[in-house]
Amino acid sequence: MNYPFSNKVLALKPNAIREILKSASDPDVISLSAGNPAPDAFPVEAIREISERILRENPIGALQYGVSEGYQPLRDTLKQYLKEKHNIGTDDDELIIVSGAQQVMDIAAKTFLNEGDVLLCEAPSFVGALNTFRSYNTELVGVTVEPDGMDMNELEEKLKAYPNAKMIYTIPNFQNPSGVTMSLEKRKKLYELAVQYHVMIIEDNPYGDLRYYGEDVPAIKSFDREGIVIYSGSFSKVISPGIRVGFMEANRQAMAKMIICKQGQDVHTTMWSQMLAFELMTKYDFEAHLNFLRDLYREKANLCMSLLDEYAVPAGITYNRIEGGLFIWCDLPESVDMLDFCKQLTERKVCVVPGNAFLTDSSLPCHSFRINFSTPTDEQLTEGIKVIGRLASEIIR
Amino acid sequence: MNYPFSNKVLALKPNAIREILKSASDPDVISLSAGNPAPDAFPVEAIREISERILRENPIGALQYGVSEGYQPLRDTLKQYLKEKHNIGTDDDELIIVSGAQQVMDIAAKTFLNEGDVLLCEAPSFVGALNTFRSYNTELVGVTVEPDGMDMNELEEKLKAYPNAKMIYTIPNFQNPSGVTMSLEKRKKLYELAVQYHVMIIEDNPYGDLRYYGEDVPAIKSFDREGIVIYSGSFSKVISPGIRVGFMEANRQAMAKMIICKQGQDVHTTMWSQMLAFELMTKYDFEAHLNFLRDLYREKANLCMSLLDEYAVPAGITYNRIEGGLFIWCDLPESVDMLDFCKQLTERKVCVVPGNAFLTDSSLPCHSFRINFSTPTDEQLTEGIKVIGRLASEIIR
Repeated sequence: MNYPFSNKVLALKPNAIREILKSASDPDVISLSAGNPAPDAFPVEAIREISERILRENPIGALQYGVSEGYQPLRDTLKQYLKEKHNIGTDDDELIIVSGAQQVMDIAAKTFLNEGDVLLCEAPSFVGALNTFRSYNTELVGVTVEPDGMDMNELEEKLKAYPNAKMIYTIPNFQNPSGVTMSLEKRKKLYELAVQYHVMIIEDNPYGDLRYYGEDVPAIKSFDREGIVIYSGSFSKVISPGIRVGFMEANRQAMAKMIICKQGQDVHTTMWSQMLAFELMTKYDFEAHLNFLRDLYREKANLCMSLLDEYAVPAGITYNRIEGGLFIWCDLPESVDMLDFCKQLTERKVCVVPGNAFLTDSSLPCHSFRINFSTPTDEQLTEGIKVIGRLASEIIR
Repeated sequence: MNYPFSNKVLALKPNAIREILKSASDPDVISLSAGNPAPDAFPVEAIREISERILRENPIGALQYGVSEGYQPLRDTLKQYLKEKHNIGTDDDELIIVSGAQQVMDIAAKTFLNEGDVLLCEAPSFVGALNTFRSYNTELVGVTVEPDGMDMNELEEKLKAYPNAKMIYTIPNFQNPSGVTMSLEKRKKLYELAVQYHVMIIEDNPYGDLRYYGEDVPAIKSFDREGIVIYSGSFSKVISPGIRVGFMEANRQAMAKMIICKQGQDVHTTMWSQMLAFELMTKYDFEAHLNFLRDLYREKANLCMSLLDEYAVPAGITYNRIEGGLFIWCDLPESVDMLDFCKQLTERKVCVVPGNAFLTDSSLPCHSFRINFSTPTDEQLTEGIKVIGRLASEIIR
């Protein structure tokens, strides 16, 4: 039958990356396309202990219904943690627990965007978030990412050009997919532009704790005097994505509606997962765990960049050096057909994500692709980048 | 600041029941207002064993990202279970895992309803689902519930009167809040009307396994030759609501869009929870557990109805006897102000849910309230219903 799909979903397509991941599940394929934590990044032993304790000491708490706002001890802990560590949050702000940061994008879009409203985002940006915005019939307008973040002149031009712009979506730290971190100057400018043009900001920060070099840059939310920033965080990259726990902090009045949307979506987030995150943050040395992760991924990032320098750069590929996060953005010369390049890589059993998947319009010209270094083993990473280099040297000259 | 809320959420209010539950958390209050499983209904020992095994044998599987459609072994098990036990599902149907059945309502509404479209539902109906539909600016139109289910003449009249009706939402078994089970004749009639008027059906069946008397009535989905029924099931009442696992089965073509919406909301459902449900269904005697629950709740239902017969009916309250589920719907004489009655009950430390919370328009006249017998202890239930009877006898004459 011809299903009477709503306007919102008529044009929706599956997330390109997650589709690629399905084909990358072939064990012969080297996948540089995922964004998964490394298998040895999970604090398995601590999680075993905690889970055993939760189910012994408070099984009913873990199995019964909870409140939509989240497990209160975890909310309190996170609110204090964000305040102390990042100067995020005021007395007018509220923090709630969500089922992974993806849910922040969904409920923020639902709460603040009418169909046809414009959302400004980095170009390229995280396809998972973009697809969520699309699912509310949001018009996406991209703003070029420079090595220090969004082009602020272009952002202001677009705020002027689109009077129905309602929201700016940004990943300021180790942006997915570009790897770029926004400078403090640009963060301040972005905030002032948002105030001036009366738009909200979603500050999506899943990778902020994974900085391998340099100093933290203050969060946009830390100078949010007007209550227009929705700050989103996640345990997916620092504890586990499978537990589906994220959090958001925003002005109480804005949050009230978002809580109702959260309630309507899944009532509340899995209790066991929330209790697990709380115990890991408070009864274990969470800072030491973060340091362990930073050491682990710093080595992988270094390896990845050395391999690129050795095999890919001489063959004509360029890339942005990164200070943190899980992704590196590679550029092919304009003469190369990027999609064909990625297809040929797949035939040689190496998967990367074609860069156009991250654009607001995937039919726009694009000569980049994204690689991930956290999921593959060092051997896979080495072999994968050698294959990339080999193919590039065959094609580019 | 005045937040630029979307049209969808402007009029949204928090779920009345969940707000009542917050005030009912006072330990001196006897809450007959929840819908929680009884604390002794949870298979705690089995869950401890399973969790220990999962985190020992396959910790990475439980902690890593999963696919949006759900944990494949659980999907396969449920598809076969529904087919064998309820003759639900065809080769054209697909089953996916969701984060509690609430998510079915959200993604079905998003996928099939434009703003202003009409959804027909039982009046009264489950407020949590109604609020989700409201959050997409759906117009809700109620159809009177008779002792054998929706009034089919009224349903047809309303299908005629509302040409933009796109969906019928029904809870055919032990409906929340009325306790009513729809007869087979009405299920067939409802299906034929849906075909005739080209509307989809959501068949929400969270309580189907909790039948204490009589025979199962075939699911509407079991005679779905056109692929218009979205069947929704849940582990919340038979394993645990805190794990947030539900499932839905629908035609593959309809499902494709719903999977994209699910992906945009929370990427996938908590892996540990899905693995837990799978292990409980396949490595334990799940039927025996269901029988244990039925025995437990049958006794509580019997106690509740005897207490009502002894204390409330003589004072002028009437109620529908139930064959399953967790709720009993009580009617006050028309002369009594129901909201005032509920308020006075609260002052006497007994919480019930005012019936108007379950209407499409809570300002409509209503003389009913809902009580739940699964959450309170037998002592609380006894004391609570005595208080209800006492108040009724003071007010009604």
